[in-house]
Amino acid sequence: MQGHTDTHFEEELRDLKAEILKMGAIVEEMIARSTQALVARDSHMAEEVMSQDPEVNQLEMGIDERCLQLLALRQPAASDLRFIILGLKISKDLERMGDLSVDICQQVTQLNLEPQLKPYQDLPRLAATAQRMVKQALDSFVKRDAELANQVCEMDDEADDLKDQIFQDVVTIMQKETEAAARGVRLILVARHLERIADHATNIAEEVIFMVNGKDIRHGGAKLRH
Amino acid sequence: MQGHTDTHFEEELRDLKAEILKMGAIVEEMIARSTQALVARDSHMAEEVMSQDPEVNQLEMGIDERCLQLLALRQPAASDLRFIILGLKISKDLERMGDLSVDICQQVTQLNLEPQLKPYQDLPRLAATAQRMVKQALDSFVKRDAELANQVCEMDDEADDLKDQIFQDVVTIMQKETEAAARGVRLILVARHLERIADHATNIAEEVIFMVNGKDIRHGGAKLRH
Repeated sequence: MQGHTDTHFEEELRDLKAEILKMGAIVEEMIARSTQALVARDSHMAEEVMSQDPEVNQLEMGIDERCLQLLALRQPAASDLRFIILGLKISKDLERMGDLSVDICQQVTQLNLEPQLKPYQDLPRLAATAQRMVKQALDSFVKRDAELANQVCEMDDEADDLKDQIFQDVVTIMQKETEAAARGVRLILVARHLERIADHATNIAEEVIFMVNGKDIRHGGAKLRH
Repeated sequence: MQGHTDTHFEEELRDLKAEILKMGAIVEEMIARSTQALVARDSHMAEEVMSQDPEVNQLEMGIDERCLQLLALRQPAASDLRFIILGLKISKDLERMGDLSVDICQQVTQLNLEPQLKPYQDLPRLAATAQRMVKQALDSFVKRDAELANQVCEMDDEADDLKDQIFQDVVTIMQKETEAAARGVRLILVARHLERIADHATNIAEEVIFMVNGKDIRHGGAKLRH
């Protein structure tokens, strides 16, 4: 009987993981397509991305519900407990990333009402970095791989630098052309949204390291350990 | 023996609540002082706020640790479980609000290197709204008062509108004065940070409603109920 129950519990954990990965795949796609919509100036694509938001919200609530059920009914200990708490946190991070993709798309539809400010170069680079971080953070979760998660944390500085660079470049343009003000601000906000997506990927990676190593590396804890 | 254990558990829950309120008080102060630093152009105060960030981070990790311990050792059911999960979520929201106050202060120190762009009016109003929301969200948590929490959710639209208004006003200024570009962007980012603080207060309020009513009103669930 005990064996039967355990198998069932393992199945439930597998289902939880599958749901998180399903949500992750949708959010990864939203991020990729929001940048594509920006570069291609494709408002239709931007609206498609925005229409995916309710599905992501539903998935988040479903995952929360699953986690609460598992905590209440299974009363898991040690590593399973950490895994379930991680599930709660990842679903929150993914939901925010979905929101940020929607925020990007809102800026894209506004930007597309006016002529393009300049060919975007650093924004797609920042977007690519953010996407790589999200993908790798989820991989590190699936593989319980702290080393992979660590690489995600290291990429965060790259994302920060790109965002600062974009800020400088766009402000320089705005100083030359007054009519660029609104569009310039929108591009800076897009950069900021992408950087926040990178931050959420970093959150996930830090939580994975905590799950695997049982050590809290958030807020500079990693530096203390080295 | 059972009675003794229950009393001890109740004490632990009280301690958890006290820690959350302590963290909340510090973050409320950070938000208030970051706006004060903006309005008074006081870089010294801005730096003081930034120096509070490590304490907030420590409190978050301490609260997380407490919650995990309670979940692992006490295996609480039903309403206590929801309260502890809420503790995990609130500490995360508060930590982000602390980060956002730091972000505001970083912009303030940069803004203070140049002449003031214009007397700020809407920004302090937005800040006051955000502060009221944070305070009331924490009150609703302490009092387990869903009605109070509901009022916080309603204030969120006000914060959004103020942020949009600031965006419009600042862009108008930037269109007139090219040299206002960088400062204008910084003011818009401050407005955005304040609006995100309001969002986090709304998150807390929604979670309180969920704890009290056992119904998930996130993502428009509230509208379905009415």
